[in-house]
Amino acid sequence: MPEAPVVIHDPVEMRTLTKSLKRAGKKVGCVPTMGALHEGHLSLARASVAETDVTVATIFVNPTQFAPGEDLSKYPRQLEADLKLLAEAGVQYVFNPQAETMYPPNSSTSIAPPKISRKLEGEFRPTHFGGVATIVLKLFNIVGPNVAFFGQKDFQQVAVVSQMVRDLNVPVEIRTCPIVRDTDGLALSSRNIYLSKDEREIALTINKTLAHVQKQIEDGQRDGFEVVTEMRQMLIDGGVSSIDYAAVVDPLTLESSDPIQLPVALLIAVYVGKTRLIDNCVVT
Amino acid sequence: MPEAPVVIHDPVEMRTLTKSLKRAGKKVGCVPTMGALHEGHLSLARASVAETDVTVATIFVNPTQFAPGEDLSKYPRQLEADLKLLAEAGVQYVFNPQAETMYPPNSSTSIAPPKISRKLEGEFRPTHFGGVATIVLKLFNIVGPNVAFFGQKDFQQVAVVSQMVRDLNVPVEIRTCPIVRDTDGLALSSRNIYLSKDEREIALTINKTLAHVQKQIEDGQRDGFEVVTEMRQMLIDGGVSSIDYAAVVDPLTLESSDPIQLPVALLIAVYVGKTRLIDNCVVT
Repeated sequence: MPEAPVVIHDPVEMRTLTKSLKRAGKKVGCVPTMGALHEGHLSLARASVAETDVTVATIFVNPTQFAPGEDLSKYPRQLEADLKLLAEAGVQYVFNPQAETMYPPNSSTSIAPPKISRKLEGEFRPTHFGGVATIVLKLFNIVGPNVAFFGQKDFQQVAVVSQMVRDLNVPVEIRTCPIVRDTDGLALSSRNIYLSKDEREIALTINKTLAHVQKQIEDGQRDGFEVVTEMRQMLIDGGVSSIDYAAVVDPLTLESSDPIQLPVALLIAVYVGKTRLIDNCVVT
Repeated sequence: MPEAPVVIHDPVEMRTLTKSLKRAGKKVGCVPTMGALHEGHLSLARASVAETDVTVATIFVNPTQFAPGEDLSKYPRQLEADLKLLAEAGVQYVFNPQAETMYPPNSSTSIAPPKISRKLEGEFRPTHFGGVATIVLKLFNIVGPNVAFFGQKDFQQVAVVSQMVRDLNVPVEIRTCPIVRDTDGLALSSRNIYLSKDEREIALTINKTLAHVQKQIEDGQRDGFEVVTEMRQMLIDGGVSSIDYAAVVDPLTLESSDPIQLPVALLIAVYVGKTRLIDNCVVT
């Protein structure tokens, strides 16, 4: 049985540890998560274990990236199961701070995230990426990794974090790992557990829509408006409850690409019942 | 003659250098400046040279902390003279980037500074501390110091930077060094060169006012309102052109202290002619 990771709750202890590891010449990888781990997270953990000498996974359900009314309180928490999975992936350390430690009273500095954070997700969750950027920077400052691993599933999140890192000269390399899908094609998400059996069937429309329009673009379709219209129609026909966005955008600027110029990112955010799901693919 | 510091313009070169120095166990000190160095800056440089193994002074006139209409374009620049002074203080490295390097096109992430940045200076220069916090974090990320040195002259700046460092878990210790004054009592500032001989005489009212009310408080005066009123009257009688603020505040929260509870910070910002001057003292 693989050895359980060492769990660290205190930022100072965490920093002291990685500081001494780095001084000893070790390359440190960081895998920031909110727990409720699935194969998507574990693919990040394995990528870090493969590339670096020491992997620190962080498990922290960050309150500042949830808006009032979102699912902060019911977000799944399962530390013991997560630790077992991380042990199997070869992760040595888990940083698992308390919310009061990360956001003590009177703490009031935050990151004003880059402009690309205002589009797409930003239109529907205007405070989300400020919360993400702030916690990611804090975690980077505490863990001090050489490299950090994010999933392409949260496409805009990786774009925002990557640009923050460039804009603020943060000394961390960002790696993006491919989306991991279930055998039926649904992108893995900690929120999939909210789906009933019928809703899960409806959710498959998302990845089917992406695959369908990806094929069209690969076959030469360059009319962005037509692609978006078709995406929306397929999603509605498939039974999603509402569409936040279905977009064809430049992968760096997140501006609409019409006429389509490759590479483009196809991005979808919908509600299936009360569950908000996102998915994407990049056509190169 | 002391050896001239090595001047580095490129962020990547700077980071690589200090990374290897730190890996070799060296303690790195950073002295962020906008150049036009005077004995105040040099006292910070000497403090760093005394405490650390390697000192990096940064010289960068940061455009984002100047508002339109402020003195960005006429701010004094004298790199050669600065390098000579830093050599004499024992500084080994100077990081002197170009504005385009620090703020490339499309760069758009910034720091939303802590609430204390909205008071005092923040009321008159609402964008100033956002610019300061952002450049300081960028410089810390590039230089990667263990310790950084700031002057108490910019009292609120040190408070903002210190709180940013706490709030964002920035792995840098902040040291505050005392105000250095000219023989006549005027706090040293790169902007003092703007003063005519008559204006300089008027400017002395600032430190005289601080000394006067400091004595009153030390003698038992606890009426904050009376102290502020007296400060304003002295400044006006002394001939200052206008008063941005004259305040008696808690040194941590920057809230008005009335009745006065020690310790308090006495803070003044005035115009003498067209030159804006600030000064302060802490009564413990």
